[in-house]
Amino acid sequence: MLPFDILEYQNRLTETKQQMEVQGIEVLLITDPANMNYLSGYDAWSFYVHQMLVIILDQPQPLWIGRHMDAAGAKSGTWLYDENVIDYPDYYVHSQTHHPMAFIADILKQIGQGNRRIGVEMDNYYFTAKAFAQLVKHLPDAVFQDADLLVNHVRLIKSDVEIEYMRRAGKIAEQAMTKGIATVKPGGRQCDTAAELYYHMLAGTDQYGGDYPAIVPFLPTGENTVVPHLTWSDDSFQEGETVSIEIAGCYKRYHVPLARTVSIGKPDEKILTTASYVTEGLNEVLQKITPGMTCEEVNDTWKQSIQRHGIIKEARLGYSVGLNYPPDWGEHTVSLRNGDKTVLQPNMTFHLIPALWLNHYGIEISETIRVTETGCETFTNYPREVIIRDSVFLNPSDGKIS
Amino acid sequence: MLPFDILEYQNRLTETKQQMEVQGIEVLLITDPANMNYLSGYDAWSFYVHQMLVIILDQPQPLWIGRHMDAAGAKSGTWLYDENVIDYPDYYVHSQTHHPMAFIADILKQIGQGNRRIGVEMDNYYFTAKAFAQLVKHLPDAVFQDADLLVNHVRLIKSDVEIEYMRRAGKIAEQAMTKGIATVKPGGRQCDTAAELYYHMLAGTDQYGGDYPAIVPFLPTGENTVVPHLTWSDDSFQEGETVSIEIAGCYKRYHVPLARTVSIGKPDEKILTTASYVTEGLNEVLQKITPGMTCEEVNDTWKQSIQRHGIIKEARLGYSVGLNYPPDWGEHTVSLRNGDKTVLQPNMTFHLIPALWLNHYGIEISETIRVTETGCETFTNYPREVIIRDSVFLNPSDGKIS
Repeated sequence: MLPFDILEYQNRLTETKQQMEVQGIEVLLITDPANMNYLSGYDAWSFYVHQMLVIILDQPQPLWIGRHMDAAGAKSGTWLYDENVIDYPDYYVHSQTHHPMAFIADILKQIGQGNRRIGVEMDNYYFTAKAFAQLVKHLPDAVFQDADLLVNHVRLIKSDVEIEYMRRAGKIAEQAMTKGIATVKPGGRQCDTAAELYYHMLAGTDQYGGDYPAIVPFLPTGENTVVPHLTWSDDSFQEGETVSIEIAGCYKRYHVPLARTVSIGKPDEKILTTASYVTEGLNEVLQKITPGMTCEEVNDTWKQSIQRHGIIKEARLGYSVGLNYPPDWGEHTVSLRNGDKTVLQPNMTFHLIPALWLNHYGIEISETIRVTETGCETFTNYPREVIIRDSVFLNPSDGKIS
Repeated sequence: MLPFDILEYQNRLTETKQQMEVQGIEVLLITDPANMNYLSGYDAWSFYVHQMLVIILDQPQPLWIGRHMDAAGAKSGTWLYDENVIDYPDYYVHSQTHHPMAFIADILKQIGQGNRRIGVEMDNYYFTAKAFAQLVKHLPDAVFQDADLLVNHVRLIKSDVEIEYMRRAGKIAEQAMTKGIATVKPGGRQCDTAAELYYHMLAGTDQYGGDYPAIVPFLPTGENTVVPHLTWSDDSFQEGETVSIEIAGCYKRYHVPLARTVSIGKPDEKILTTASYVTEGLNEVLQKITPGMTCEEVNDTWKQSIQRHGIIKEARLGYSVGLNYPPDWGEHTVSLRNGDKTVLQPNMTFHLIPALWLNHYGIEISETIRVTETGCETFTNYPREVIIRDSVFLNPSDGKIS
């Protein structure tokens, strides 16, 4: 039932403990749902209430602590022994008088962990300011230390099974993009394209189904293509507009993002020119990536390429990607940008999104890649250009040429 | 372009400021994306980076502060003046050296708000422990106060336009449930049902499209029906299994959740009996709800009903619902449960989810309601029973009777 062999989970736990030792952490409280999944296999949409995985340096198994009604899923859906699953009653949920972190602090004290050096994921979405304040209040003898991204860094280099899951996610992304783009036409509604994208992202292929992506599809349209994180409306597409579609295929929580700009009808010359700069820069980056390069050097390649066309761009070229939950599929560890000296290693995986957002339009053409032993490979095989939805193609029977 | 009249936003802001005065708060820092939307109209999936809306008691408009690439959307998609939209550079994103809250603290100091009484949403997902620590560090002259749920409480009673949006969400929920259930059959894959549900949740109706729900569909199946927050796999449904489908229709971020248990083939007698207890209890609650009752009394009605059948249930009966973003469509303010003395008022809206999870199966039959002047009304009109997918119906041509 678990997506990975128990040995793989145990290896991940061992690596996590090695990092804990390096950082001087005796007890690690994990609230990032992706990190909880990575170490235990736990996969449920229960992160909207407080929950955590507790890693104790000198104990062989993590503890899962969460809401009573979610405990059955933690017992059946992880490699943990049932007695390592501890639940709090429902009156702790969204309550002004009972906070789950007070309950968890009591458990830590009861099992003799109340006076230890405790790592917490300080900047994780699911570790709120109040969660931390409650732990500090109820564990006066503990010493807290920021362990944000500790496990995320362990996740950076993927195993072969993780890569295989990302290949499947890539296949799903390709198919969804093809099917979604087929619905982009004058008079078609944005929401219908979003629906079609989602359908194929979830239905996946005949061999394997899709999982929900950590971010919903973006499809900014027309003037809104300069606003990258807009979702959709029920407005209709117009001839002459461009749409920037950014999605991810997802398989067992592993993501492969893919973005393309679509032109409805013949695109403006400026759009094709800008797109050619993006593609040129992206191709140069893909040819250059090799283990041993730094992330900054990868970004420099992109910057130098577009600078030849007089374009300067501040935003990072890309970021590490893989296992995740809403609200982000990025891993928050390594970015392809100025100042990031991380050295590329085989089986690191990145979403390269060399978008250009100009004053009145934007172009997004992205690739998700794996660093190989000698270079890199993309997870998807999709035309690396502006996708033109031509009226001739849209209405083959009416004989009109746009 | 905004989904509400500017006057409605201004009224919401006025009510928020009244609450700020009651609580002695001069500056309110809002990080909950639903609260940001509620007061400004801002709607984008940019909450995976730090951002906020700043409400200053003695200034007429909020400030939006967020990432550079999202500022264009804040200018075009809110009622704020462009000069009230302030952005931070991209090197603040997922950086170990630059935190957006340090940037925001500097802005607050520059505009003379660094020494005021500042409210923060302490238990909001998007207000991390580190976000708070950074504000405290960089605003040494400020006094911080927990203002969690302050705006959520303002959201509790809906306007007529909000109710109309929820009616549309209800229509979308009904349609998606019908279409999704039609795909539940022996041999059908769970992921294909999830895909169909999503398709119709987003495509909506011919008159209005759907928006993404704050929670993905749950469809725990078979023995997993006791685990409420499981999503789906690519396993196939089996004859004799039950599936508990919980979805929400969503329109312009307003949610109407709906849950039904589906039986694939003739259900076990125990399932029908348990379902009859749920329906009976739910019907009693719906008949009894009236303005002036407390939330606790509503829950008591449900508890007394199931106790007649020897069932005792700890979890709350329901919670207030409306505008939201991932990871939750609940408003976190009012729950229908023991101890909640909130008095019902017209245009409060609740998701009643009187589920029963027993040892080997669970039944979920839910309704989302509006409290009216004299009682309550449901947003959806869907058979309040276990939905039976009969083999006769599934394979009308093969003449077999299950």
